[in-house]
Amino acid sequence: MTVRKPTMADVARYAGVSLKTVSRVVNREPHVSAEVRVKVESAIGALGFRRNEAAARLARGATMLTIGLVMENISNEFYSRLAKAVEAAAAEHEALVVFGSYEEQPERERMLVESMFARGVDSLIVVPSSGDHAWMGRHTGLTTVFVDRLPAGQEADVVLLDDLRGGLMATRHLRAHGHRRIALISDDVRLSSVHDRATGYRQALGEPDERLVVHGVFDPWRVSQEVSRLLDLPDPPTAFFATNNRAAIGILLALRERPERPAFVGFDDFALAEIFNPGVSVVRYDIDRIARGAVDLLLDPAGRPRRVTVPVELVVRGSGELSP
Amino acid sequence: MTVRKPTMADVARYAGVSLKTVSRVVNREPHVSAEVRVKVESAIGALGFRRNEAAARLARGATMLTIGLVMENISNEFYSRLAKAVEAAAAEHEALVVFGSYEEQPERERMLVESMFARGVDSLIVVPSSGDHAWMGRHTGLTTVFVDRLPAGQEADVVLLDDLRGGLMATRHLRAHGHRRIALISDDVRLSSVHDRATGYRQALGEPDERLVVHGVFDPWRVSQEVSRLLDLPDPPTAFFATNNRAAIGILLALRERPERPAFVGFDDFALAEIFNPGVSVVRYDIDRIARGAVDLLLDPAGRPRRVTVPVELVVRGSGELSP
Repeated sequence: MTVRKPTMADVARYAGVSLKTVSRVVNREPHVSAEVRVKVESAIGALGFRRNEAAARLARGATMLTIGLVMENISNEFYSRLAKAVEAAAAEHEALVVFGSYEEQPERERMLVESMFARGVDSLIVVPSSGDHAWMGRHTGLTTVFVDRLPAGQEADVVLLDDLRGGLMATRHLRAHGHRRIALISDDVRLSSVHDRATGYRQALGEPDERLVVHGVFDPWRVSQEVSRLLDLPDPPTAFFATNNRAAIGILLALRERPERPAFVGFDDFALAEIFNPGVSVVRYDIDRIARGAVDLLLDPAGRPRRVTVPVELVVRGSGELSP
Repeated sequence: MTVRKPTMADVARYAGVSLKTVSRVVNREPHVSAEVRVKVESAIGALGFRRNEAAARLARGATMLTIGLVMENISNEFYSRLAKAVEAAAAEHEALVVFGSYEEQPERERMLVESMFARGVDSLIVVPSSGDHAWMGRHTGLTTVFVDRLPAGQEADVVLLDDLRGGLMATRHLRAHGHRRIALISDDVRLSSVHDRATGYRQALGEPDERLVVHGVFDPWRVSQEVSRLLDLPDPPTAFFATNNRAAIGILLALRERPERPAFVGFDDFALAEIFNPGVSVVRYDIDRIARGAVDLLLDPAGRPRRVTVPVELVVRGSGELSP
């Protein structure tokens, strides 16, 4: 059974207004009363209507698609790689990319989306913050795809990594090299990506020692302090699983000043991972698949939320293969 | 004496058309014949007219400024830092940033600018490629600021680093630590930034051994090969000056496999520079000053080209202080 996509006519019927009025709201034309706008937006939300980008652009007389890319921080290597991949995927459709960083402040994320909407951005790719995203669905049918993390309070198209499997692979790999006391270094566990990576870690270990589980550390310097603290325990970990690139870099920072040589596996590849001695073993994925998956979903909106999962693999470079 | 900025009225007089016609061309309204458009664009070029952004936006009924940022490659750390800084500077003026990378292909740079222009971008910040930029001035007065490098064939507002001084500082620092055979690793010397850094190197050395001067290497793996080749010379260099972050990373790559420990200084700071042992000494600058300088110039267009120079400083971390 296929679900029929709701049309503008459906929205008009549901809202009890004319098709032209729906078109005015969807195409952000002036001269629509606030009352009518709210009525149409409610109908759009209730029916899960997503406008046809190509048709909408033609209707506005515009010739080029503009995609808004909303991220945590463009200067973090994960996001600059993602931005480049989205740019390349968008260029295949002659689309431009507007970007903005919200620095893990949900209210700034909302401001960014509002201003992109006001400026006529056609659709959005969002790496959601940990805040609630229910408000985003009310944006007059602006097509949105979330990537890397599930948005809270919003059913929508998403492109996620196979985070659970990544967590399992990394931790099992360390176990296979003889490690039993494996620490977890991660940031905000409310993010679905972090949550799933941590779940993989727990599943691989059975019952981890909770004193070795660290959540909520974001920057490499804080990570480095936590790593030192753990290595100073009477029964220290012999290995680490770092759930993102900043955590892996924090471990490298800590080890610069310490005599211990614990094994560790990171999640996210980074440019200098192979320069270190030993090289940094990581869980890796093809970031172009995230970007292309998101753009494909944007250009073919459906009536129901879809999920694309991008596979991960383990890259062995030395740091994950050290003995206890 | 102050130079009066040319106005739309000046353009109209020069082109022999009405003020309304100039306004139509500048605001990209339809219904202007190709012939008239060319006439107005020639007048704009001849007089060096730059439209007043705030007024132009009001005239178009738009409420928000959109800045196009054209760069070589967003995934290179220099550009992702620049993008973040431009985003922050733009946000202070409630402006959005559209970005695009041209991958050192001048024709792709031109396509990017054309498509940004077609999409209604208000003004441009461009890190120019090595190609000619005379065509860019003919864009109906789209305000453009070039950063990091001088554009060829175009007199325009620019924000540059004090590259000459950076090259001098780095090379003198290595000399002060006893080095005489200092190699230069750089990319495209047609770029004014690279040219000026290399000139600083030459001035500091007097007469460098030309066999130690390497131009035209872009990626870290190629740099690494060149570094190995130089270290294998009968009279090898004892120190290196790397004119950008990729060259510094290439040196680190080469040294991973070699017994020698030559001194080296990079140009451009990078996230992991302090993690290595010894840390990487670099010529550094405040990238926010580049971004803010560019946005300030954009928002206050003048009738004549201006130049802002951002100062540089040497950061001592160990790699530049090794003895010969």
